[in-house]
Amino acid sequence: MYSSVRPDVFRSLFYPRGVAVIGSVSAGKLGHEIIRQMLSGGFAFTWAVNPKGQGLLSVPGFTSVSAIGQPVDLAVIASPAATVPEVLHDCGRAGVSAAVIITAGFAEVGNSAAEEELVRIARRHDIRFVGPNCAGILNTRHRLAPMLEVIPPDGATALISQSGALGGAVLAWAEEQGLGFSKFVSYGNRADLDEADLLRYLADDPETKVVAMYIESVGDGREFMAALAACTRRKPVVVIKAGRSSAGRRATLSHTGSLAGSDAVYDAALRECGALRVRNVEELFDLCKGFSALPPMSGRRIAIVTNSGGPGVLAADRAEEVGLDVAEPGPALRAELASFLPAHCAIRNPFDLTVEGDEESYRRTLTAVLGEYDGALALDVNPAYLDSLPLARGVADAIVQSDKPVVVNFMAGRAVAAGVEHLRGRGISNYPTAERAVAVLVRMAEYHEASRVQIADCKLQIASCKLQIQNPKSKIRNLTSETEPAIMAWLRENGIPTPPFQVAETSEAAVRAARAIGYPVVLKVVSPEILHKTEVGGVKLDIRDDAGVLAAFAALAASAAGKEFHGAIIYPLIRGAHEALVGLSYDPQFGPVVAFGLGGIYTELLKDVALRVAPVDRDRAREMICETRAAGLLIGARGQRPADLDALAALIARVSELPFLYPEIAEVDLNPVFVSPDGVLVGDARVIRRLT
Amino acid sequence: MYSSVRPDVFRSLFYPRGVAVIGSVSAGKLGHEIIRQMLSGGFAFTWAVNPKGQGLLSVPGFTSVSAIGQPVDLAVIASPAATVPEVLHDCGRAGVSAAVIITAGFAEVGNSAAEEELVRIARRHDIRFVGPNCAGILNTRHRLAPMLEVIPPDGATALISQSGALGGAVLAWAEEQGLGFSKFVSYGNRADLDEADLLRYLADDPETKVVAMYIESVGDGREFMAALAACTRRKPVVVIKAGRSSAGRRATLSHTGSLAGSDAVYDAALRECGALRVRNVEELFDLCKGFSALPPMSGRRIAIVTNSGGPGVLAADRAEEVGLDVAEPGPALRAELASFLPAHCAIRNPFDLTVEGDEESYRRTLTAVLGEYDGALALDVNPAYLDSLPLARGVADAIVQSDKPVVVNFMAGRAVAAGVEHLRGRGISNYPTAERAVAVLVRMAEYHEASRVQIADCKLQIASCKLQIQNPKSKIRNLTSETEPAIMAWLRENGIPTPPFQVAETSEAAVRAARAIGYPVVLKVVSPEILHKTEVGGVKLDIRDDAGVLAAFAALAASAAGKEFHGAIIYPLIRGAHEALVGLSYDPQFGPVVAFGLGGIYTELLKDVALRVAPVDRDRAREMICETRAAGLLIGARGQRPADLDALAALIARVSELPFLYPEIAEVDLNPVFVSPDGVLVGDARVIRRLT
Repeated sequence: MYSSVRPDVFRSLFYPRGVAVIGSVSAGKLGHEIIRQMLSGGFAFTWAVNPKGQGLLSVPGFTSVSAIGQPVDLAVIASPAATVPEVLHDCGRAGVSAAVIITAGFAEVGNSAAEEELVRIARRHDIRFVGPNCAGILNTRHRLAPMLEVIPPDGATALISQSGALGGAVLAWAEEQGLGFSKFVSYGNRADLDEADLLRYLADDPETKVVAMYIESVGDGREFMAALAACTRRKPVVVIKAGRSSAGRRATLSHTGSLAGSDAVYDAALRECGALRVRNVEELFDLCKGFSALPPMSGRRIAIVTNSGGPGVLAADRAEEVGLDVAEPGPALRAELASFLPAHCAIRNPFDLTVEGDEESYRRTLTAVLGEYDGALALDVNPAYLDSLPLARGVADAIVQSDKPVVVNFMAGRAVAAGVEHLRGRGISNYPTAERAVAVLVRMAEYHEASRVQIADCKLQIASCKLQIQNPKSKIRNLTSETEPAIMAWLRENGIPTPPFQVAETSEAAVRAARAIGYPVVLKVVSPEILHKTEVGGVKLDIRDDAGVLAAFAALAASAAGKEFHGAIIYPLIRGAHEALVGLSYDPQFGPVVAFGLGGIYTELLKDVALRVAPVDRDRAREMICETRAAGLLIGARGQRPADLDALAALIARVSELPFLYPEIAEVDLNPVFVSPDGVLVGDARVIRRLT
Repeated sequence: MYSSVRPDVFRSLFYPRGVAVIGSVSAGKLGHEIIRQMLSGGFAFTWAVNPKGQGLLSVPGFTSVSAIGQPVDLAVIASPAATVPEVLHDCGRAGVSAAVIITAGFAEVGNSAAEEELVRIARRHDIRFVGPNCAGILNTRHRLAPMLEVIPPDGATALISQSGALGGAVLAWAEEQGLGFSKFVSYGNRADLDEADLLRYLADDPETKVVAMYIESVGDGREFMAALAACTRRKPVVVIKAGRSSAGRRATLSHTGSLAGSDAVYDAALRECGALRVRNVEELFDLCKGFSALPPMSGRRIAIVTNSGGPGVLAADRAEEVGLDVAEPGPALRAELASFLPAHCAIRNPFDLTVEGDEESYRRTLTAVLGEYDGALALDVNPAYLDSLPLARGVADAIVQSDKPVVVNFMAGRAVAAGVEHLRGRGISNYPTAERAVAVLVRMAEYHEASRVQIADCKLQIASCKLQIQNPKSKIRNLTSETEPAIMAWLRENGIPTPPFQVAETSEAAVRAARAIGYPVVLKVVSPEILHKTEVGGVKLDIRDDAGVLAAFAALAASAAGKEFHGAIIYPLIRGAHEALVGLSYDPQFGPVVAFGLGGIYTELLKDVALRVAPVDRDRAREMICETRAAGLLIGARGQRPADLDALAALIARVSELPFLYPEIAEVDLNPVFVSPDGVLVGDARVIRRLT
């Protein structure tokens, strides 16, 4: 299950004794750029390899890796695509154990065969590689920069990026943003080492406190989840995933399928594994700065210390909106603050020191509130005539003496330049706005709250539910030949509660069945040729007597005119229950996905649906229920008895296991599921199986 | 109705012939700071006034304004609060017609009497003033900077701010953000000139293309709306309003009241008047930069031109999320692009030029797409080895030749410094992220879409519905003495449809009434002492025969045991209708507010409520209906007949007029309102009136 990458591969990749850069060193060529960056980084043991044996600046040149005659652990390959196989052979002969293949022109342009060949050759020589079609890697602490991008400041954030360009833009922006990086990997086509391998490595990397990722897709959804959960158990992982609007990946065959667009599945998987998804590079910087520099945020109560009322309220607005608690101070804190704050400072949260707030009042107020709150925002809205430096001193002193996180916003521009400089000197980031600063605290609190051990464990369980399905893209057929009685019987066999039902092939049998079940009843047509029963008039509700059954049976027979008619299925009428939807669909990257929502407009109009990668246990199924906005209805609004959530959670969990028991199942749609205080019952079901 | 500020007041305020700065000029005093800023600004005709007649630098000092002996149009007052009345008298004698009172210590510290005195004195001398308790004003073009804040670059944005500190922070940040300002007013306590006066002036100010506002509250809600609508008809107004989380302003007496928290009313009022509300200073800058530099955005179709696929998709994600249309190109454009783009560039939106995209391909592609789309994003995710300058040239050339708006994001840091510099030289802003850039385009499209003439007209109508209510904070009482039959009759008289009903004081009369109305019926207790009928068992539904009526009547009598009992009110049972809520509440700043939502969980659980400042006409009432997420239900999901939206809109409009006809009305709660394809009927109602 775990990745089979040996630790020495990553040692060769990030801490090589020597590095060969293969490719032309002429100006404008990739090899030229890479060697320049290697020299900028300051790594001493670099050699150039190209047909002419040309060197560049202080880097000597050779005609082959084997000819270097010194230990070469890492090869950085930037020669033309057609030459890469031969280069790999050369590397193998020279004892290279890791490679970074910058060269493009493989699977990304449709040339998968050439890419597969690279993998075969590398395997033969026991070489593991990053790429092809990537922008290189970086290990700041080892001064190793075989890449095409700007070298960022040293720091505690590792960045792994599917897009070289986006990764490069992040690194180029790092200095201005005040964020340092420990490692960077642009992994391109991930023909060999992929995001899951890198996550597993970074989980244990002592130089990395935070992992930042940019992904567009993942190789193996479940392997990714397992690696991600293992990593978030150790340190925060902040993820940008592109493609929220993309409809391309959807494999929509049923109602449930259309609800579970692929990006929604990514979103659920990321959340489930404890990763923190952000929407853009600014948020990525904001969070990485917070996680790499601040102590943990162990709760959601924050104090806002400001010298301007309105901006303090704006920050409080945002804080409450994102889920922080801008709580009022308790009596002890109130008394403490009253002992030193001037009378014109109202002692409430936000704590407004007014424009007269000085070094001492910032220091003492921050120190005092950090005794009671879980974290704080220090806000200075600085008029031009006010010197920001003493305020920064007061803020910085309080911060370095506390074990609680404090985010800072000194506004703005040159009015606060001296203060911001002082803060930076003490390792304190100044956020551009108070709103962005408080948004960091809530994500830090989220990370702290996630019971990481538990998440990781349940994710290991998911990973172990590896699919037996060999070809997930095999054709899917709708089993119209399986009629409702067969599906209902199958559900019941599998522990999923259905109402009592009988099948009657004649009207007389229908009357007997209805009497046995007890009026009022429901009759539905049974025909392998009718999929959408309601549309043909094949469903008759609220039938109250024998005469009604006879009429209904005749109508059903008529609805099947010209088609195979197997009679009617008869159920009791179920009243006073909520109608929910439980579905299972198949995501091309994550496999089976389970969905829950209340029926009708809740799912269709309000898109109020909870998703999880299957399987889920009952606890997580219950989380899904509570996650929907309409959950309040089930829990019992206005003094009604609460619905049987235990039974509903058990049903969701059971449905989520089905594809692992029956690998041929592609989709299941239980709609409606009747949910009442007395239990749950499936009212109708569709099951779609794969053609094997 | 219109503000009575004479144009010459604003001429004196912003274009004075001479300025007196009153207050101590010693170091550390406000007068000192103000004179220094006046000198920095470069305004020549400035004089200092203080008891010692001290000057500062090139500014001569006098002991009174009258002593200056030259024309003084504007007085900037920074002397102690106790001296301000006498200073105003001096100003009056000297012929000053406008003043800016920087001095604090008035209403903001509870000293309203002193503030009222200032107004009285100013009126006597025909002086209009800004402040007190403000940070000053700025007119960049006139080099006039009597203020405490950083002087920003010249530009086309005017800023008016209730908070001096926040306004100052915006100005201090302006240079770094690349935004210039035409005028700035910190209006503090707005004892005289207020935000509405300033909006009316700025609407006609030829030096201002965009108005930015920071407000925490407004003086007169309806006057503000009228001024705001008049301004947005001429130019965009971008607003930060603090206090989303504040619960302080709510005057919650009924269900509707609790839905319409004060900030929600502000939000509705701002939207209604065509203003663009933003959440923080970064968004304010983003929008002002767009509006002040770009041509109008006349639609929602945008093209994204990028040299990196993933970041292009991220931008498209955000664009679709905020409501732009990242539409595919038509055949003509497709053919045009194919004629010059290399084969490896996929011709679809986002248009990915790949890392090989150069000056020429950016120029030609942007020019081509601007022929078809309403606007564009030009995105460069720039690897370190790529020179951003030619790309910037291509982008800038296309932009200056087009009449469509193009937002730009060159990423990032020093990798794009040369390109960004070139863009800035052509007056083109570089947005920090593509996501922020596209968010600007959608707000520009919103502004363009708002039919401003219409908005302004309807707002004039609102303003003309000035409330006759003299003291909005007078006590409110619940008319429990008005029973349901009286309220229903009153509604009917006022053109609001109710079901037919009869009142019966005896069980025999109840049976007769039920027969006349037709079974099934509903009986409800009539008692001036019972407000919550359901809770005491005072409502009996679905009564199908005479015996049922007798039993129900007896039960109702029992429910009123020990209380006054006026019999039963009898209605027909209404089935198959949607239940909606129409309410009217009273906002302390905006007066009557009308609310609409579907009943039950839609309003309680989902907060799915539309609000407007009353009155609304039928068209706007219909907009309210369509604005709720649950509107789909009424419009007719799954082939049902649509509800009678005309009747519903008419009812909402009629309710919204009631407080203008009956000024004593504080709140109205119609809940439920039955809405069906055949019309609307009020099922129950509460009316709360003011004690007069």
